[in-house]
Amino acid sequence: MRWVLIGASTIAGEWMVGAIRAVGDEVVAVVSGDPQRARAFAAEHGIAHALTDEKDYPALGVDAAYISNTNEKHEASTLFAAAHGCHVLCEKPLATSMAAAVRMVRACHAAGVVMGTNHHLRHNGAHRAMREHVRSGTLGKLVAARIQHSVYLPAHLQGWRLDQPAAGGGVVLDIVVHNADSLAFLLGEYPVEVCAMVSNSGMATGMEDNAMSVWRFASGVTASSHQGFNTPFADTGLELHGTQGSLHGSGMMSQQPSGDLVLVTAQGRNILAVEGGNLYVSCLEHLHRAIRGEPHAMADGRAGAHSLAVALAVLESAQTGRQVRVADVDALLAG
Amino acid sequence: MRWVLIGASTIAGEWMVGAIRAVGDEVVAVVSGDPQRARAFAAEHGIAHALTDEKDYPALGVDAAYISNTNEKHEASTLFAAAHGCHVLCEKPLATSMAAAVRMVRACHAAGVVMGTNHHLRHNGAHRAMREHVRSGTLGKLVAARIQHSVYLPAHLQGWRLDQPAAGGGVVLDIVVHNADSLAFLLGEYPVEVCAMVSNSGMATGMEDNAMSVWRFASGVTASSHQGFNTPFADTGLELHGTQGSLHGSGMMSQQPSGDLVLVTAQGRNILAVEGGNLYVSCLEHLHRAIRGEPHAMADGRAGAHSLAVALAVLESAQTGRQVRVADVDALLAG
Repeated sequence: MRWVLIGASTIAGEWMVGAIRAVGDEVVAVVSGDPQRARAFAAEHGIAHALTDEKDYPALGVDAAYISNTNEKHEASTLFAAAHGCHVLCEKPLATSMAAAVRMVRACHAAGVVMGTNHHLRHNGAHRAMREHVRSGTLGKLVAARIQHSVYLPAHLQGWRLDQPAAGGGVVLDIVVHNADSLAFLLGEYPVEVCAMVSNSGMATGMEDNAMSVWRFASGVTASSHQGFNTPFADTGLELHGTQGSLHGSGMMSQQPSGDLVLVTAQGRNILAVEGGNLYVSCLEHLHRAIRGEPHAMADGRAGAHSLAVALAVLESAQTGRQVRVADVDALLAG
Repeated sequence: MRWVLIGASTIAGEWMVGAIRAVGDEVVAVVSGDPQRARAFAAEHGIAHALTDEKDYPALGVDAAYISNTNEKHEASTLFAAAHGCHVLCEKPLATSMAAAVRMVRACHAAGVVMGTNHHLRHNGAHRAMREHVRSGTLGKLVAARIQHSVYLPAHLQGWRLDQPAAGGGVVLDIVVHNADSLAFLLGEYPVEVCAMVSNSGMATGMEDNAMSVWRFASGVTASSHQGFNTPFADTGLELHGTQGSLHGSGMMSQQPSGDLVLVTAQGRNILAVEGGNLYVSCLEHLHRAIRGEPHAMADGRAGAHSLAVALAVLESAQTGRQVRVADVDALLAG
């Protein structure tokens, strides 16, 4: 497949160019509103075309668009790609409003193109191993999940995420969506209700740089989700606790294929084997499967809309001081 | 000092009789409404007097009462002890309402007796080591705390805690108070506002057996507090995360003098030495200091009222679906 990159972003350069090539695809063009940035990116990564306007890429014969401009621009870029018959892999959060996310999913569906959301964590071997244990019932009745995802936003990313609410900045939109997708992958459900508190330690301006929330699932499971930009030494983790066992995952909320997983039951503590492998390469392999109409584990556009709904509910709860019901994404998409 | 035990409880038998004797004090009598239970407890522990009514102990010449009957009875027993000039060490939660807790603290103050709350965790060496690091500023600006305190209620304790709301059953009153006291000990403050969700996996009847909450402190720190009766393999922990470092404590929310503590900063990961020692013996040593008018680290009656206020706010938030302000205990006590 021939790809265009919408946005000369850090993640595109650090991960996606390599991943696209690793699955045998080609990066044909990069689009950035800043011509210098587009040219520099193209030169650094050996990409033939550096464009400043996405309207110029359809003429190049492109099959798929990887969209990683700032979040408020995802909708227009997705709608444009769909209108030109390109499959879409969009960064998270899909958008900054549910209405926009719904329009994006509908546009791709109407155009007959595949839409993926770049939720990479479900491609981590530790997450996959956890899911097998959930499905096999090792943990008994699931009671609670805990996600530790308060990290440090690297210096080179300390831009719009810290001071541009309109671009979808703030740690909630940036990280809660990942946590929601990870639990959806593991539990097969999204939370129905959340409560949350946010804080600001001075790293961000006019928005939160740390957030804690509690989620309730229809199954009765509750989950805690902690995310932050300002705790360099907090480590990450994901734990599932049931009446018959617990899975303690650590270091697995990362772009790297990292993670340690320990299963604790009445039989004792067992360190589980975890498969490695580049998460973004796996994302793209599953996108290919989706395009071929095969079973896949990709987070599709609907999944991206669901994870956005959770993040927006967390923000609303923090703002209003009330428990907030998560938007019924399936109803929105059907409606 | 000569002690009377109010309540022939598990904790009295497992921990407090031994701790009282370890500090050189004497257990003179045990009181239980059930005469057989009183006699059996006295025989097992070599206690001279088995009483069925607390009105009979003042005649024995008693200096202090350890109160561990069910929670709704703490108030009457504390007021009786104070009226007879006995110092009080009361189990947590102090009571099932703020009004009762306030009456208890006031009664002890008016009678000139010392009142302690049996919050043992602040006597754990890992908690004390954490406090030293908080005070010395090792962690930079504190951002977040996480408490993992979802355990398994042992079979021999699966009584009123699981089915008697009037006795103060449920995991919130049982465990949130400990978490509140631990963070107060570490941070020097109580939360001002909480949000919470509770759940029931079928272990408890008509009340919660698991609960998750988020707390906001006036300093800007937020904390997550997870407590449960129904997760046998979840382990316990207490973590503090700041802008310059994190303290990862594990296994330290326990009656045992257990716990591992790791400090992570830019200098790397350091396993910290943790002092052992029986937590309840330390409680009593500090009670003695308080009685002598010396500086001490005991949780006093006021501390017990504060931790109860947090637990009641967590329950109210779970019931109402709103963030709840924690009662202003100092104002209540002054008012």
